[in-house]
Amino acid sequence: MKNVAIVACGLAPFGVRKATWRELVQEASKAVFDDVQNLDKKDIDSLFVGAAMPERFAFQSHVAPLVAEQVGIVPHKVVTRTELACSSGQSAVRTAWASIVTGLSDIALCLGVEKMNMPNMLETQTSMACVLEREWDGVQGASAPPFFAMCAQRHMHEYGTTVEQMAMVSEKNHHFSTTNPYAQFQKEIPAEKVLGSPMIAPPLRLFDCSGITDGAAAVILTSEERAKEFTDVPTYIIGSGQCSMASNLANYKSLSTWHPLKIAAKEAYRSAKIGPMDLDFAEVHDCFTISEIIEYEDAGFCEKGEGGKFIEEGQSNIGGKMPINTRGGLLGTGHPLGATGIGQIVEIMQQFRSTVPKERLVDGAEMAMAHNLSGAANVHSILVFGRSPR
Amino acid sequence: MKNVAIVACGLAPFGVRKATWRELVQEASKAVFDDVQNLDKKDIDSLFVGAAMPERFAFQSHVAPLVAEQVGIVPHKVVTRTELACSSGQSAVRTAWASIVTGLSDIALCLGVEKMNMPNMLETQTSMACVLEREWDGVQGASAPPFFAMCAQRHMHEYGTTVEQMAMVSEKNHHFSTTNPYAQFQKEIPAEKVLGSPMIAPPLRLFDCSGITDGAAAVILTSEERAKEFTDVPTYIIGSGQCSMASNLANYKSLSTWHPLKIAAKEAYRSAKIGPMDLDFAEVHDCFTISEIIEYEDAGFCEKGEGGKFIEEGQSNIGGKMPINTRGGLLGTGHPLGATGIGQIVEIMQQFRSTVPKERLVDGAEMAMAHNLSGAANVHSILVFGRSPR
Repeated sequence: MKNVAIVACGLAPFGVRKATWRELVQEASKAVFDDVQNLDKKDIDSLFVGAAMPERFAFQSHVAPLVAEQVGIVPHKVVTRTELACSSGQSAVRTAWASIVTGLSDIALCLGVEKMNMPNMLETQTSMACVLEREWDGVQGASAPPFFAMCAQRHMHEYGTTVEQMAMVSEKNHHFSTTNPYAQFQKEIPAEKVLGSPMIAPPLRLFDCSGITDGAAAVILTSEERAKEFTDVPTYIIGSGQCSMASNLANYKSLSTWHPLKIAAKEAYRSAKIGPMDLDFAEVHDCFTISEIIEYEDAGFCEKGEGGKFIEEGQSNIGGKMPINTRGGLLGTGHPLGATGIGQIVEIMQQFRSTVPKERLVDGAEMAMAHNLSGAANVHSILVFGRSPR
Repeated sequence: MKNVAIVACGLAPFGVRKATWRELVQEASKAVFDDVQNLDKKDIDSLFVGAAMPERFAFQSHVAPLVAEQVGIVPHKVVTRTELACSSGQSAVRTAWASIVTGLSDIALCLGVEKMNMPNMLETQTSMACVLEREWDGVQGASAPPFFAMCAQRHMHEYGTTVEQMAMVSEKNHHFSTTNPYAQFQKEIPAEKVLGSPMIAPPLRLFDCSGITDGAAAVILTSEERAKEFTDVPTYIIGSGQCSMASNLANYKSLSTWHPLKIAAKEAYRSAKIGPMDLDFAEVHDCFTISEIIEYEDAGFCEKGEGGKFIEEGQSNIGGKMPINTRGGLLGTGHPLGATGIGQIVEIMQQFRSTVPKERLVDGAEMAMAHNLSGAANVHSILVFGRSPR
């Protein structure tokens, strides 16, 4: 398969922003074009927009041409939006990747965006109920926090995982996000503060949960052959895995083991011809603290049931076995649904270029992965990246 | 580029259905699996769902895994939903095509679905305002009918196109849909009835407009190498073109010439190595009668300004220069947004297999195209199909 490279990246600051949906698009697009050398906007022939729910959050559908117009490009090869809830951004990158491999596209912009903070926040919260299976689960109140709370309870029951260990995930990721001026939360949140924060869905407290965030992120992709025209340090896509299993909660095999993640990870490592510990660091989907702990296990960074120990021993910190979520994760950076997956890839590219602040630099990193789950953890999506092509 | 084939197709009946969103999915999926030989559901490794606005019409996001569950498959290679308003279905097929060419997917299901008829139809109508650029245009009342009415007025002014010619498009497509048991409208609508129907947005009357439709459609794609395992008559994808230009109506170069269609068509023919008249028939996006007339011209089936004459002379009928919309088009079949693009491809496959009723058969057809516009005709998407691979 032809190698594909990411040659530029850019962010709009994440947070509770006064900016509109389209202003977020403009900010990320300015950032990505500021980051690229020798590229005229008219050379972008394809556009892939990752957006989860603009129809509800911004009352706007058909968002791909709207983004094209805001950015100032005329996509004349391939143009679409991809929606996969919290993985919408990564889905845009995967789709662009395939389009370039086929030759349908030469140079593609991927832009992920979500404007979640609305004048009436009740409407944001209500809308989130339709990310889960609405007719059977959402209608019973099964939005994200109660679902992940059930996963946490089951994990605690089966493996002895503790709320203190979960709190450590939050502390670590909030510590990383103090180094990230694009993050929604830039203050230290020590574990004791997590444990004293308001209860949301037992055992998950406020600081066990990622935020409701506005933000945008963008990357530009092209073939390996052309990559060096646009950047000195391209980031190559070297592997991929994805799996969807069940939707209705009644059909889940387990809450504490995420089988679709295991399948996606196996395929990602197989296609990249690596094992999990060949990665130098990973961006994983810590929508809640328990998510990151289960992901340590089911992505293969530690044995099943030892995720709690993994954070406790500092193995997911810089200097540990597998540094995780160095930009601050969803917990520290915020979680603008469509932007999250691309925001993770921005971190990976900046790590490979060694342009992140020294406190969070994984020195000499050669390989990393970006993982997203979506909905009630029923879909898992992984891309593997390298400083070198396959 | 590796050749990709469509090996099975199926429809849920289009119309004002009592079925729910997920029942429509089940119907189309049953139909497509009934149509395929030697295929176990577990061999489907990828899923692409075309859906325009389930977040508003069905209060359900993250629809790809929901479809997977309804269908009874576990996509373990690639899974996403594509949204491109009225072209969402074709976008799913284009994305699946690329995924198979790259080898990321082996066998993919593409399913397009829309449930538009809601208990409160006012909500359907309001939601349609966010398909156009909502902040500047939708908010001024520029939903689809007024926009296409402006196109019609300008085309009449510049080229002398008449309301009688537009009515003939409706008559033709409604005639075709009398042969189609899956169509929303199965009665003859003579031109005089179109001209006497209630005014919607001058000069467009009720029967100049496609309906508000519930429906679903599905196809299965795989590589040329594997296609013959599953069907005796595969349909091959042999060309593609797509272009997005402007979003805000103030930025349109013209209302009567659709420049992005011209660009998409040029690329579609170039990539298929054909000229427009090498096609044996075409499915084009007749959301309104004027759309089909402009498409005759800008897709290259007649000279600019002669679209009215083209229908008047019967050139778009069976036996004419280019039979158009033999299944009944959007006008006769209805327009369930996400299902439309795949519904057109079902017709093309059934034409190639000679399984459509004799009255609408394009005998011996070897090549055809499917065209969709989306939003305010600012994005145009074309796929070209052949009975033989390239």
